[in-house]
Formats: sequence, structure tokens, C-alpha cells
Amino acid sequence: MLVVMSRHATREEIDAVVAAIQGKGCTARPIPGGERTAIGILNNKGAMDASYFLAFPGVKDAIPVTRPYKLVSREFQPKGTIVKVGDVAIGNGHFCLIAGPCAVESEEQALTIARKVQKAGAKLFRGGAFKPRTSPYSFQGLGEKGLRILARVREDTGLPVVTEALDHEIFDLVEEYADVVQIGARNMQNYSLLRRAGRSHKPILLKRGLSATIEEWLMAAEYILEGGNTQVILCERGVRTFAHHSRNTLDLSAVCVVSKESHLPVIVDPSHAAGRRDQVIPLSRAAVAVGAHGLMVEVHHAPEEALSDGAQSLYPEQFELLCSQIQTIYNAFQPAHPVERAGD
Amino acid sequence: MLVVMSRHATREEIDAVVAAIQGKGCTARPIPGGERTAIGILNNKGAMDASYFLAFPGVKDAIPVTRPYKLVSREFQPKGTIVKVGDVAIGNGHFCLIAGPCAVESEEQALTIARKVQKAGAKLFRGGAFKPRTSPYSFQGLGEKGLRILARVREDTGLPVVTEALDHEIFDLVEEYADVVQIGARNMQNYSLLRRAGRSHKPILLKRGLSATIEEWLMAAEYILEGGNTQVILCERGVRTFAHHSRNTLDLSAVCVVSKESHLPVIVDPSHAAGRRDQVIPLSRAAVAVGAHGLMVEVHHAPEEALSDGAQSLYPEQFELLCSQIQTIYNAFQPAHPVERAGD
Amino acid sequence: MLVVMSRHATREEIDAVVAAIQGKGCTARPIPGGERTAIGILNNKGAMDASYFLAFPGVKDAIPVTRPYKLVSREFQPKGTIVKVGDVAIGNGHFCLIAGPCAVESEEQALTIARKVQKAGAKLFRGGAFKPRTSPYSFQGLGEKGLRILARVREDTGLPVVTEALDHEIFDLVEEYADVVQIGARNMQNYSLLRRAGRSHKPILLKRGLSATIEEWLMAAEYILEGGNTQVILCERGVRTFAHHSRNTLDLSAVCVVSKESHLPVIVDPSHAAGRRDQVIPLSRAAVAVGAHGLMVEVHHAPEEALSDGAQSLYPEQFELLCSQIQTIYNAFQPAHPVERAGD
Amino acid sequence: MLVVMSRHATREEIDAVVAAIQGKGCTARPIPGGERTAIGILNNKGAMDASYFLAFPGVKDAIPVTRPYKLVSREFQPKGTIVKVGDVAIGNGHFCLIAGPCAVESEEQALTIARKVQKAGAKLFRGGAFKPRTSPYSFQGLGEKGLRILARVREDTGLPVVTEALDHEIFDLVEEYADVVQIGARNMQNYSLLRRAGRSHKPILLKRGLSATIEEWLMAAEYILEGGNTQVILCERGVRTFAHHSRNTLDLSAVCVVSKESHLPVIVDPSHAAGRRDQVIPLSRAAVAVGAHGLMVEVHHAPEEALSDGAQSLYPEQFELLCSQIQTIYNAFQPAHPVERAGD
Repeated sequence: MLVVMSRHATREEIDAVVAAIQGKGCTARPIPGGERTAIGILNNKGAMDASYFLAFPGVKDAIPVTRPYKLVSREFQPKGTIVKVGDVAIGNGHFCLIAGPCAVESEEQALTIARKVQKAGAKLFRGGAFKPRTSPYSFQGLGEKGLRILARVREDTGLPVVTEALDHEIFDLVEEYADVVQIGARNMQNYSLLRRAGRSHKPILLKRGLSATIEEWLMAAEYILEGGNTQVILCERGVRTFAHHSRNTLDLSAVCVVSKESHLPVIVDPSHAAGRRDQVIPLSRAAVAVGAHGLMVEVHHAPEEALSDGAQSLYPEQFELLCSQIQTIYNAFQPAHPVERAGD
Repeated sequence: MLVVMSRHATREEIDAVVAAIQGKGCTARPIPGGERTAIGILNNKGAMDASYFLAFPGVKDAIPVTRPYKLVSREFQPKGTIVKVGDVAIGNGHFCLIAGPCAVESEEQALTIARKVQKAGAKLFRGGAFKPRTSPYSFQGLGEKGLRILARVREDTGLPVVTEALDHEIFDLVEEYADVVQIGARNMQNYSLLRRAGRSHKPILLKRGLSATIEEWLMAAEYILEGGNTQVILCERGVRTFAHHSRNTLDLSAVCVVSKESHLPVIVDPSHAAGRRDQVIPLSRAAVAVGAHGLMVEVHHAPEEALSDGAQSLYPEQFELLCSQIQTIYNAFQPAHPVERAGD
Repeated sequence: MLVVMSRHATREEIDAVVAAIQGKGCTARPIPGGERTAIGILNNKGAMDASYFLAFPGVKDAIPVTRPYKLVSREFQPKGTIVKVGDVAIGNGHFCLIAGPCAVESEEQALTIARKVQKAGAKLFRGGAFKPRTSPYSFQGLGEKGLRILARVREDTGLPVVTEALDHEIFDLVEEYADVVQIGARNMQNYSLLRRAGRSHKPILLKRGLSATIEEWLMAAEYILEGGNTQVILCERGVRTFAHHSRNTLDLSAVCVVSKESHLPVIVDPSHAAGRRDQVIPLSRAAVAVGAHGLMVEVHHAPEEALSDGAQSLYPEQFELLCSQIQTIYNAFQPAHPVERAGD
Repeated sequence: MLVVMSRHATREEIDAVVAAIQGKGCTARPIPGGERTAIGILNNKGAMDASYFLAFPGVKDAIPVTRPYKLVSREFQPKGTIVKVGDVAIGNGHFCLIAGPCAVESEEQALTIARKVQKAGAKLFRGGAFKPRTSPYSFQGLGEKGLRILARVREDTGLPVVTEALDHEIFDLVEEYADVVQIGARNMQNYSLLRRAGRSHKPILLKRGLSATIEEWLMAAEYILEGGNTQVILCERGVRTFAHHSRNTLDLSAVCVVSKESHLPVIVDPSHAAGRRDQVIPLSRAAVAVGAHGLMVEVHHAPEEALSDGAQSLYPEQFELLCSQIQTIYNAFQPAHPVERAGD
């Protein structure tokens, strides 16, 4: 933290800030400049709260210098984490394709889609049993029945399954059935749910919130790691911006930054970012090319009959095309040449 | 809903959309234009899902025409709702000032502040017992002890208290103590929590999510009303934009639009929008001037010692100034001249 | 500027940065911390370029500490500037109401509106002769004929006129006729135009760009002051965000920050922010309440026949209502109580 | 355009809208629904202005159905445009790599970099002679001297050159020297400059504005085509969002949408989007993978000495790596499988 004093700050105001820093057991190092004094804070354990210092008279700004996250940071653990789901590995050189419908609608639907995506190359099956819906009047998912169908899909195909838990109560139930428990974008800062996930023995797929900074996203993961669960997969799914030609704006530079700042694997969900089918294949290629550790894609054999998000679901034959294209792209830059791995 | 067909859509594609509309029990009205056909959907009950139609071949766009919310809409209930908290009324001509610290820190702190804000004109006392924090390492609030302190403040001062419930489990506990239960911005789409609030007999203060559209915000309120609880106060608290000179960008036009679209009262929280003390008084004046039904303002008698958000807390004497200024402003345009109440 | 080195930065990398700072004639002050070294830059003349330092190996971040603007800053000139337009004063306690149609359409239209807004209280008349239009097929304004009509309005009513110059060629022409030359939001970083405005002897009204930070906006004004013209009025007119219930999101905290950082007057254009008439009166009240030095409002006697932006133009009787309301609001907090003027 | 009337709209209000539509030479088709009437507008030539209809009493909304652009649209010209620069082709299956420094600093610098990027695979050389700078105190480019250096580079290497024109006066000069004239992001809606570009016989590279919608971007191109110049290359370079881990947020879905809506080639500038070197290679791969028709990348042989934007410039050896990676990626999905080319 660097506390920047106002040009007109008095000696007493500067001293009060110095005393406050020392009162917190840190070292204060005033840096008198030509125009104003700044005060560096050293030997702090963890991040300091900027707003604490902004409350002092004579303070113009308080600028964070170090990052607030610890357990998720690559400075803490330089080697990339590999999350294992059964035989499937994700992260640190292991790429994983997750596919399936937005919502589980029936056993027949789920099995039909699962077989098709498995044949094309998917390693995990996704499908929602509990759906977060903007409207109370929309289809909310099959609930526990949906979870049983997912278990049946796993039994029949051998594919591990990913499904969402909406709150910490439902988490108990979902944890029983799922191989990976998803925490959705709207719940990224649902701290009860994050703490519950921290106590789980199942891997967690943590989606980025609709307008979350990378720091907030990593801090949400920090909640889970702090609870004892280190098996976390991050998932970029687009952020909200002024642009409305796609449902959200897919932020692929986030993949670069997360990979640099954190050891956790990061995958991309192009379906929710796009919101429309015709953008899903190009954005999938781009996500692989940018260096994501996996993709999560919505596929439906009859999207026009889907109970939710049909417009963004690929037809199975489109998913096959996607699989063949991304394989070549992935190989084009693996292993990444060291020159690209500069930085901290 | 208006389904716009591609210029090159075939007769069969148009017929398939028409059949699908009729299959949902609605009326389809094709409107052949010079260049392309659009199909209006009539007699639908509630809003249709645009993505359903986007999944059909030959469809270029699906444009919602009606709003998806019902119970919260002014079309459903033209008269403004008045929420009653003890003797205090909020909405439809009744203005309410809520004030207090960000977090309850001790009985002495809470009582000191409560007496000061009450004297200045606050009608409700706010204070967090359970705090949603970005970092697992930050102060998380006093929990139930904080709730007991709030009860003590009410006993001593007679001020009803507003405090936040972080999840539906904590809701039970908070509901026992609080006069108004707050649902925070990060939880605006926590549907378990919204459903629990819908079963509550206490008024709910529902903050707008960090990047929520007005439609999403009203749909979140719809969840609560649909559950049976009609005592909902909406609270604008700034949205996330590219601008970083304030913590969030206070969106005062939202107050205009919500007042027009919904019968629910809408108040403003300038403290969380600003994030810095020196913007709070001017933004408070602006919020009153735009027509908000109330303000919720953070006040602390010693902000530099506050355990959270000290930088945005007003000193008690600043709060007094604020109270005197807004009274005059409020009177300047009440009752609003009818010419301004045009529209739907 | 504070240059933050990577945790793993070598001695040589740190020395290279220090040498580079000294090579620019500044003082480098390394601050070794527990985990990493940061290097403060002192005695720099004007702002440094962060990207220069980011290009060095071993540098993790380069954090600006001082502001890049100089002539526009309140640190440079503590007393608020008063811009004089004929007998009308704007800024530092002088409030000014500007009103008129979006575009000048005919002499009759302009005169009709001018007389009505003058009677209600407007001190300056606005009207576009050259219109920046998204589409090449839209009405582009009457051009010089429009300027002549403006001159006629001034002659008849005595109202000074504000009108926009689209580029530096047109500037010459506009400067002849106008009392205040407007630079529009899309041109805020048209540096040729800003330099031309810097050589003008007429006051300049500089609108904030659609997604400009306050720093960028003030730097645009710095171009004008640097050229020798100190008569600049800043105008907040809404920024682009994800929210689409108003055309733009009016950012009233910008008024607070600009007033604190700069000595230049800052006014608000609620019409372009709102884009719809029913938000204009409430947002105007809010703009006055937040402390703006003026308002610029679109008024049309027959908005449904306006050639541009009819939807946001007030009827003359609405403008009268607005005038009466804002007078009371303005008085409610003038002169501002000193307690509010804390800070730098 | 669909005009949606208020639920309480009177017969007279509906009739007034119908009359106004007919008065503009179009056909009005009222669609009475269960709750409200909507009025479709048929046989309009070009897009209608929504605000015109919003100004009528009883109108709740006016929803554009057709796009406002014409000459740039794929509906107008289904076949993709190929822009030719000397022997180099861009668009419709022809990929083009543009590289060079941010600014031309000296003949030696320009030639050194040009030879390196040419060897690696660049087909066009970029370099700024006139630089748009946020600060009047920053390096503004070498001006005409820079243009002469560019001409020298072309002479020596055979590489055509791309350079920016800041305003329509400078355009004359730039046009003499450049093979492609660039219009920068800040100038995307500088209509004088666009009109001048429309009269040019040189190809134009039109960058997307910092917060421009795709519709606004295409309308800016429409200005150029309307003036007679059909050789326009669009360039996505990131948009401004709340996210600040990259300078701007690269919006790759824009490439998909532009390719679908328009016949013009669209390339990507990852350097200005990222703002930091370590994101440039991954984002370049992603841009190629999403289907861009080219890349424009900043390269500098000694970025730590660059006069502007050194932090985002690649080292020549990094650019070589980039070239080898993108070749494979490009081949992975060319020619695009027809199944992906669905839609309008």
C-alpha cells in the first residue's frame, strides 16, 4: 500500500498516518517528493484496506501495491494445479472438453446428447438440474430427478458429470451425485456457498461473475481454498458491457491474466458468452488458441425444443466440427515456447 | 414478442415459426414487409423466451415487446405501494431517511451513532451484523451478537433497524431481530434467498445488483412478491462501469424508470455508490432531487477507526448538514406537478 | 510514479530501472520491502509514461501517483474560474441555464423557442447548425444558414448563443457567429479541433466523451488551456454503460470530482443523457442538487415535428416547471457549508 | 420499426401515429394485441428514427427492426470484399499480417524493424507519423518527416505502409505517402474525416471506437462507402469496460458479427487491446482462430527505448514465434465448413 498525502497535508496529518501504520504492526516509510509526501507500508501480512487510510485527514489516495489473494496465487504455488476428475485431468498442460445440454430435460434427452458428445470427444458431461432463472415463472430444472438422470448418464457412458448447486443447502444433494460441482456466475460472491464448497471433497467449477474483476474472482476462489478444497477450476463466461451483439462480452485476456497470476486451471464457456449459436464455434476456437485449459459447450440434439437456452446450443454435428478444429489449434502452440512465458 | 425472419427465410421456415407459436397456445400474426416477414405473437400469458425462437432456422431476431414482470409492475397496480415499518412509512409520497454505520462494532459504537442520527432526523437505523466481504481474511461482522446489539439500539431509541441477511439460513435469525431485512447487491439473484424473503412477514430492502438491468432487478423483486411478501423497498446503490473516480456509478435515471414501471418504493444508497465521503452529501441531494423515496447513508462517529468502509462514512455533523439540505430540496417539487407524470 | 518490481526481479533489473529514471533527470528512490522492491520516482516534471517502465524486464507494475494535468487543476489555480459570456457568468457561484432546440430548423422555430425559454429563465440559447449524425442519410443541420438564424435570435432576444463546431475548418465559421463554441462528445479527443479551440477568443463548451475518464476529459481541456484559451466550460452528458433504460448513464459524481480536481466550471446536459423526455426534469433537479454550475436542456415547441431528437425535448411548459423547481433546489445549499469542502 | 403503444393509449393517439407514418410515405400496420396495440411500419426506405415516434403521446416504445446501414451490409453485397494494397489482398479468404512500431522514430529504427517483420512474414508495415496523444505534453510524432521515412521503408523493402491521418487537413498529406490510411479509434465518428476518406483513392483502415457499437462502427464505414470509396478494412482493437487487467477488452465476437452483417474485411489489433506485451501473442492466436482477416501488431527492436507504447510492443523474436503459430491455426479451419456459415 502506498498512501499519497495531499499537497497541503500538514506535518501532523502525515504523522497520524505513520502512527496508524505502526499501530497495525507494519513499517511506515515516508517518501518526501518535490510536491507531496507518499508513505510506503512495508512488512504487512496480507493486503491492507485502502478505505482505512482514505478516512484520514490529508490523505489524497491509497494505492494497493500487492495483491490481496494468497493461496490461489502463482507466487504462493508456482506450479500449475491439475484437477483430477476420475481419469480426466484439467490444467497444467491437460486440456478438457465439457459438453451437454443447458438443462437436463429427460433421461432420453440426456443420454442421447451424452452419447453424441462423447463420441465427438467430450470428456465430461454437463447438464443443469437446478437452474438459476431470472424469472420465477420460467422452468427451474428437474431438481433431484435431474441429478438421478445425470447419475444414469455416468453409469451408461462412463462420463463424469458437472452440474450446478444454487445454494449451500442444495449443495449437499448435488455433491452426492456430481463429479464436479458448479458455482454459477450469479453466485460467485455467495459466500455461504463458497464456504460450503471449501469443505467439499469434490472439485468445484467456479464461474466468473457477470461484472467481476479478476481480483474478485480469484478472491472468491481463495474462499474455497482457504476452506481446504484446492480442486478449483475457474471458468470465464463473458462479462457485461455496453455491447449487445453477443449476450456477454467474452474476455479472453482474462485467461492470460489468470494463468499468470494463479496456478488454478481456467476454462471458457463460449455458449453463455455468445448467447447465439453462430458465435459459439469461432469463440471456442479463440478460447483454445488463447490458452484455456478447457471448454464447456452447450449441445442439444433438438435445440428448437430445448426448455432453456436453445438458441445457443450447438447441433451435435456442429460440435463434431468444433472438436476437430480445436485439436489442431491446441497443438499449434503446445508446449508454449518459453519466450512467451515472461513476467512474474 | 416480434419474431423477425431473415430476408431469405423460406415459406417453410415461416410456417414452422407460426406453428410453434400456435403450439404454445398463442396467436401468430405474420406481417409481410417489403424486404422480410416479421411475426407478431399475441395473446401470450406472460413474457415469451426470445431464445426459443432464435433457435429456429430462418429467424434473424426475436424482439421482446412486453415486459416480463407482472406483480411489481405499475400496469398491474397503478397506485404506489407504501411500506410500513412500525410508524414509519416509505413510498408514495412518504420519504424515509435510514442511517447508521456500515458494521455494528460494539454496543457503545452503535448506540452513539444511533442517537446522533436520530437527533439529526433519521427514521430507521442501519448496521451490518453479517458482512459480505470480498476477502475471507477481512472482518466478517459480529454475527448474532451484532443482531442483539441492534435490538438493544431499538429498545433504547425506538428506531426500527435494517440489517442484511446473507443467505436463507441466516435469514431465519435475522428475521427475528430486524425490522427490515436487507438483501445485498451481490445476492440480488440468489434465488433461494429471494424465495425465503417471499415467505417472510418482514419488509425487504432489495439492493440492485452491481450490473443488473432494471428488468433483472424488478424480476428479483417479482420473486419476493410471487412468494407472498408485497413489502419490498428497492435500493439503487450504483453500478459498475468503466469509471473509477467513484466506487460505482450512481444511476439516478434508474429511480425515474423504476418509479414509472413499478409501484414499489425506491431509495438510494449514496455511500456505497461513492465509496468516498466527499461525494456522499452532493449525491444525497441529487438522489432526493431526482425523486427517490428515501436515502440510506453510512455515518460513523470515528470513521478512521471503523472496521469497514470508514472512508465513505459521514461524520455526524456532516449528516446533520445533509438532513437540513435535503428537506428543502424535497419540498421544492412535492407534490410533483402533473405535467411531469406523463407516460404509461 | 511508483515502479513495482517482480518478486523475482534481479539486482541488475532493479539497477536498470534506477538508471533509466536517472537518465530522464529524475530521482529514483528504491524502497525494499519484505517481498519485493518498489522504486519511487521523484522530481519529475509532469506525469511519466507508465508504459515506458512496463517495458523493462522484471517490472510488475507502474503506478501513477500524480495527475497528468496541470493548467486545469485546482492545485495549479485554487480559485474557481468564472467564464463570462456577455453579461452572463458561469462558474464559482454563478449558475447558468442554457436551453434551445437540438437543431436549428428555421428562423420561426428558433425564435419561437428562444422567446419561450428566455421568458422561463434561460440565459443562453443553444441550437445546432452543424449536427454530428451517426448516419450519413440523416439530417445534418442547416449549416451556415443555421448560424445566421442564430445570429438573428441573438439580435432579437439579446440571448448569447451556443452552437457546435464539428471540425477545425468549420470552427472558423462557427467562431464568427457563436458566443460559445461547443465541442461535442464524439470530438472530445479530436486534437486538431482542441488545438484550434485553444487559439480561439471565444469560450469553449467541452462535452465529456462517451466513455472518457475524468482524467482524459481534463486532459482534453488541458489542450485548450495550453493553447492559450482559459475560458472552458466542461459539460457532463452521460456515459455509455451496460444500462439501456436511458440513452446514457448520467454520471453525477463526475461533477463532484471535476469540481474538486479542477477550477473550471462544469455543467450538465440531462437531455442527451436521458434520451427520453420524462427523465429530463428529474435529472435536471439532480444535476443542480449535486452542485453543477449550469444546465443545458433541449426544448422544442413541437417536439413531434422536430428534425432530430424530438423524444428528449421538453415542451416549453415543462421547461418553465423545471426552472421554478431548480431555483429552490439551488438555494437549498448555496453557499455550500465549509464542512463539505474537505479534502485536497 | 415497431411502435408499441401504451396500454392506455387512446384511439386518437393511435390514429395520430398511423397518420404520421403515412405522412412519411410508409405503410402503417396496426396489430391490436390483448393488452395493447403495436404498429408495424412497412415500405420504409432506410431506417426510421425511433426518437421521432417516441415524441408522440401514448407511445411506450419504438423498436428498430431493420438495420440502418445499407452499402456495407452483406444483404446489399453478399460476396466478401477483397481490399487490394499493391499485391497484397485482404478479406474473403485472404489473410494479412501488418506489423511495425507504434511511432516512426527515425529512419534507422523504422528500417530495422521493417526488415525484421518482413522476414518473419508481415505483408504491410505500420508506423505512426502523426500520433493522437491524451496529453499535449507527450511526443506527437515526427509529422511529415515520419511520412518520408515510411516512403523510404517502402522503397527499401517493398512493403506497403499503413499510417494514421488525424484530421481531414492532414489527410491530404498522408494520402500522398501512405498505401493505406488509418482512421483511429478516437476519430471513428469524426464525420469530416470520414467524408474525406470517402473521396480518397486509397484503402482506409477504420478502427472501432472505444465504446462504439457494431452498428455505429458500420455506420461510420457507411459514410466512407457512401462517398465512393469501397476499399475499407475494419479493425477491432478492444473496447472500454469495467475490466482493467488489459488496457481494453478485446471483443472477438465483434469479428463474428461484422463478418456476418458486412462484406468488408475485419482485422484485429491485439496490441492496443492488451496494452501489455505478454497478452499480445495469445490474443493474436485467438484473433486468427475466431476468423479475423488479418492482424495488426506492434513490434519494436528495443521497446524499452520506444517513444510511445513500448510496453505493448513485441520483440522481433516474439513476432517470429507469433507468425509460426498463427499459420497453423489459420489452416485449421480454412475453408470454413459450410455448417458454420448458417444465418442471414
